[in-house]
Amino acid sequence: MRDHGGNLDVAIRRFGGRLEDWIDLSTGINRRPYPVGELPSRSWAALPSRAEIDTLHEAARSAYGTRAPVLAVAGAQAAIQMLPRLARAGQARILAPTYNEYEPVLASAGWQVEEAGDLDTLGGADLAVVVNPNNPDGYQHDATSLLGLASRVKHLVVDESFADVIPAASLAAEAGRGGLLILRSFGKFFGLAGLRLGFVLGCESDIAALADMAGPWPVSGAAIEIGRRALLDRGWAEATRARLLRDAARLDGLAEGAGWKLIGGTPLFRLYDCGDAIAAQERLARAKIWSRIFQGKPGWLRLGLPGDETEWNRLAAALSAR
Amino acid sequence: MRDHGGNLDVAIRRFGGRLEDWIDLSTGINRRPYPVGELPSRSWAALPSRAEIDTLHEAARSAYGTRAPVLAVAGAQAAIQMLPRLARAGQARILAPTYNEYEPVLASAGWQVEEAGDLDTLGGADLAVVVNPNNPDGYQHDATSLLGLASRVKHLVVDESFADVIPAASLAAEAGRGGLLILRSFGKFFGLAGLRLGFVLGCESDIAALADMAGPWPVSGAAIEIGRRALLDRGWAEATRARLLRDAARLDGLAEGAGWKLIGGTPLFRLYDCGDAIAAQERLARAKIWSRIFQGKPGWLRLGLPGDETEWNRLAAALSAR
Repeated sequence: MRDHGGNLDVAIRRFGGRLEDWIDLSTGINRRPYPVGELPSRSWAALPSRAEIDTLHEAARSAYGTRAPVLAVAGAQAAIQMLPRLARAGQARILAPTYNEYEPVLASAGWQVEEAGDLDTLGGADLAVVVNPNNPDGYQHDATSLLGLASRVKHLVVDESFADVIPAASLAAEAGRGGLLILRSFGKFFGLAGLRLGFVLGCESDIAALADMAGPWPVSGAAIEIGRRALLDRGWAEATRARLLRDAARLDGLAEGAGWKLIGGTPLFRLYDCGDAIAAQERLARAKIWSRIFQGKPGWLRLGLPGDETEWNRLAAALSAR
Repeated sequence: MRDHGGNLDVAIRRFGGRLEDWIDLSTGINRRPYPVGELPSRSWAALPSRAEIDTLHEAARSAYGTRAPVLAVAGAQAAIQMLPRLARAGQARILAPTYNEYEPVLASAGWQVEEAGDLDTLGGADLAVVVNPNNPDGYQHDATSLLGLASRVKHLVVDESFADVIPAASLAAEAGRGGLLILRSFGKFFGLAGLRLGFVLGCESDIAALADMAGPWPVSGAAIEIGRRALLDRGWAEATRARLLRDAARLDGLAEGAGWKLIGGTPLFRLYDCGDAIAAQERLARAKIWSRIFQGKPGWLRLGLPGDETEWNRLAAALSAR
């Protein structure tokens, strides 16, 4: 399996402990999740009805600010798994470095995949992928550049898995144009990655093709019920965005105290240059705090934000222990 | 959307009422579900780890009685969606009449699909599909015939979505042979269709290929936790099988009283010849009980089993109201 962060098995094999001993900061998943609450028994027992799925789609349109066709899928990853079949395999270009699932999924389905270092180089591709804001460095592209690129490729996939924390970065209002696909993650911002929920926004024909691939019941009853509630809860979203902004600054402060240099990030994760990332990861791991490092980037370490004060204290202690 | 039963939207559009007014007997989903219980917060919040998914696979092997490779997927339907890509599109043959998703999913992926009336006619296909016990008539094939067929096709898919109620009908002990794929549904017997959980049993290379298509997080944290508990709960399974057998006989008694003739079924659903199935469906629907009828089979009506006594009483009243 490719390394995505979030797989504590690796941490436990190397550094011991049980799942519940670890603070997992190796992902960008919010550690103060949306409250799940009670679920009606129907959510567990019944096949989701078309009308129930439609209410979820409507909530997503409202939250993301679009009137375009929307498809709920079992996480943004489920959308990535389907992408290669949206068109005949051709030339795909991915703005790199970024989330490491696009390349192998496209390549194994017969696409010719190239990494590109800037937006311009993506032009002319049959399928171009831009993660915006980017993971792991948080880099943001403006709407004008992305729409310009969209007109120079057959399909442009804009992965907005981390856009909930920076709504102004989203291209959702432009969804519906032919060839433009926007991927949204539910689990990261709402802290419910185990629910497996995400969305694709796109034009009618692409969404219809993806819906056909996803089948009649692509998400669980719990995902429909909790997703709908959470996406319509504007108060929670605003308070959470404000809290994450404050917490990101707090994390930067701790990192600075440890001598790390901020490279970039979003309010859900921060990327630091630690000099020796392997040593930094091990130092945190001895305190049962898991982080993410990157092959070929010896200084890079990405950290999600701690949740409660206990977690902040453990991180602060680990960073000050030399 | 194709008619599968379970879509109460159609019933509500035609006969009124709200979701909660209806007793949905249009599926074969057990209406007395496995108790969901409390879930650890990790099930909601975290990405499922490889080790957690492995414990679910181990529970499935134990419950189904196999040592073969197993893959958890988001319902048996999710496995059907992936089938067409398991091999280069060729000649597929489906033993009919049966579950109506195989034909369109395979055909839309470029397979040449034929329906066959008996096992022998499936021989020679690149991909053969047998639902055993069959939906909607409950027909059972013996292991010897199925294994004989397996040796005469490239891939044999045995859909055992309803085998939990008739464990002796399962070919799971033979899983692992090259070309044999066994599909299991979790949601029907355990009454938790909204959870979206199912399994594929197969040989190493096929399961690896399907795992690649399904991606790193194919099922939710709740599905992993509840699935593992339920699959290991032999006491519940045995009591439920006994109860369903009794209830199936009770349903047959009610149907006989209404002048319907039993065609077949499993302890999760019964197929009756009502003479005029459209009229019979409407009669039940006026009492807000939804059933399943079949195009081209004017007499056929399929009924799932009521859950509690209130539901039995409503069904008995609807059947005796003339």
